[in-house]
Amino acid sequence: MSEIVIVYHSGYGHTKKVAEAVAAGASAKLVAISDAGELTEADWEVLSAAKTIVFGAPTYMGNSSWQFKKFADATSKVWFVRGWQDKLFAGFTNSASPSGDKALTIESFQVLASQHGGIWISLGAAPSNTKAATTEDTNRLGGSVGLLVQSPADASVDEIPTGDLKTATAFGERIAAVTKRFS
Amino acid sequence: MSEIVIVYHSGYGHTKKVAEAVAAGASAKLVAISDAGELTEADWEVLSAAKTIVFGAPTYMGNSSWQFKKFADATSKVWFVRGWQDKLFAGFTNSASPSGDKALTIESFQVLASQHGGIWISLGAAPSNTKAATTEDTNRLGGSVGLLVQSPADASVDEIPTGDLKTATAFGERIAAVTKRFS
Amino acid sequence: MSEIVIVYHSGYGHTKKVAEAVAAGASAKLVAISDAGELTEADWEVLSAAKTIVFGAPTYMGNSSWQFKKFADATSKVWFVRGWQDKLFAGFTNSASPSGDKALTIESFQVLASQHGGIWISLGAAPSNTKAATTEDTNRLGGSVGLLVQSPADASVDEIPTGDLKTATAFGERIAAVTKRFS
Amino acid sequence: MSEIVIVYHSGYGHTKKVAEAVAAGASAKLVAISDAGELTEADWEVLSAAKTIVFGAPTYMGNSSWQFKKFADATSKVWFVRGWQDKLFAGFTNSASPSGDKALTIESFQVLASQHGGIWISLGAAPSNTKAATTEDTNRLGGSVGLLVQSPADASVDEIPTGDLKTATAFGERIAAVTKRFS
Repeated sequence: MSEIVIVYHSGYGHTKKVAEAVAAGASAKLVAISDAGELTEADWEVLSAAKTIVFGAPTYMGNSSWQFKKFADATSKVWFVRGWQDKLFAGFTNSASPSGDKALTIESFQVLASQHGGIWISLGAAPSNTKAATTEDTNRLGGSVGLLVQSPADASVDEIPTGDLKTATAFGERIAAVTKRFS
Repeated sequence: MSEIVIVYHSGYGHTKKVAEAVAAGASAKLVAISDAGELTEADWEVLSAAKTIVFGAPTYMGNSSWQFKKFADATSKVWFVRGWQDKLFAGFTNSASPSGDKALTIESFQVLASQHGGIWISLGAAPSNTKAATTEDTNRLGGSVGLLVQSPADASVDEIPTGDLKTATAFGERIAAVTKRFS
Repeated sequence: MSEIVIVYHSGYGHTKKVAEAVAAGASAKLVAISDAGELTEADWEVLSAAKTIVFGAPTYMGNSSWQFKKFADATSKVWFVRGWQDKLFAGFTNSASPSGDKALTIESFQVLASQHGGIWISLGAAPSNTKAATTEDTNRLGGSVGLLVQSPADASVDEIPTGDLKTATAFGERIAAVTKRFS
Repeated sequence: MSEIVIVYHSGYGHTKKVAEAVAAGASAKLVAISDAGELTEADWEVLSAAKTIVFGAPTYMGNSSWQFKKFADATSKVWFVRGWQDKLFAGFTNSASPSGDKALTIESFQVLASQHGGIWISLGAAPSNTKAATTEDTNRLGGSVGLLVQSPADASVDEIPTGDLKTATAFGERIAAVTKRFS
């Protein structure tokens, strides 16, 4: 079982690519929520054994995809027995606009983690927000609570800004480092 | 076609009862989201013809039920053509705790309405929050952006606090009054 | 007395410039919150007489500037007598990052308006979020609840992106149009 | 220097009493923000030396008091040099209604902590939300991200619900326990 697990939903592959970039930094296991919003029993056991759970989903209409929310609703069984109490949590989201209400998705992840009695790891990176900033810079969108990624509306999976993917991997490294510091 | 339409999801009947109380005040038509998160084509036409749309859902794990979110995601087709631009919107939610992250559900409704270019009608009622306040008082939970209802975890549909249902009907009346003032 | 009033705080002049751009579109009167977070008695009367109040402030440390908040706290006297009930409201904010927790500032404006029993006018514009989008495009940041402006950390008042100022003026025009429709 | 420091603003003494209850559980040092929103140089040094910082403020008009926000704005100097990176954080708020937009204040604390690169400790307690729940129960309001306290509008400092104060002390104990686990 992995110490860090990323549970995510991806609609068109962009969020999957971001999840992989976070996983590369965190040496994390990936658990994909299906298009029907489901996990397997084995997936639930992987989550149960994790020390740190990372939530990921696209932002659609100003909130996480319904498939992610179906997963979140299903965690109520775990919540009822405080099964994830004191786990570490973090989160990321992706959408077409630089801002575009991504903050609400991240907030909903943070609230979900808090309902489970969790401890939340912020992005932990200063923003790149001078006039000279480009899409190759880390945290160019200015995230704080979690990782924000922008994939323009007509961008293919291979056209996610390189700075956002670098930020994702650095975030994974941070998640691993904080996880190690908790006994 | 009704001028005011309430589109809601109810998991166990409590939110349905709240929806009916709002509808009674607003003379609104009710449209129920199915347990699979679906509407009929006729339902979509009712929403399209409405002047005012009211969102309702239970708060599960700190956000609207996934069935409501599936509906919200499906409105992206309408969003793409700005089909609900300048409609009036309002919202309500129900959960077992007095606070319990209901605020995030209401915020997500407000953001959804805003993505559609909407105009948002707040609850518009002063809170009943003195020491003498009881569950028979209106707006005893102190809502502002939308209507908050508390159904204790072991309360049947017939045990929703009477004050909350009175608040729901008064909210419906307010929605109707504001709707009339828009030409 | 003006029908539409913009009450704003500006720390270094950027938010003032955005306020002026909104005012140009809305034919609105500008009321500036002082560096001590104060308004004059005459300012309060202007707000009292307004049909529509627009809130504006920079986002500092993930929320509106303290000077704006001091103004917000002072509105509790008006709130107590429901003095702004059924007024129309809207809002805008500015910060150095594209996202940068601007959403929380706008949410706090929306909540403040709702506590006063207000009706909220969203930004009402589709985002410009394709690969070809530039800082000259309208709503390039993807705002929805209110107007989002990015002034890079080293940008002078004259270097606010032209697209953001165009969006501000279009938002002002929208606020004026919605105000007219409300009798 | 204390390992855990509570920095708070209290308008009328209620939030001070809650801060003391959290401090009793956490063996924390208390740092009071003045009525002018100021700290002393010594206070800033206490915060700098802390392993865990707990934010506390009343909710006024749907957000933390302006005095707390003035403190938050002043932390931008620390933020600029990443001076609080990887500290632990938590938060609490008090207002007259059970819900009453307390969630936004807590969210703003969580965002502030995240901008500083912090790690957030949730309330970590199941809610008491059955029909039999009283004001003597712990977490009767259903908080998750932080501690929520309700002091009715006409309640003196000695009339804060005992359940809320018990929750505060238990929260302090949790903060101390999590702090110990982080090396």
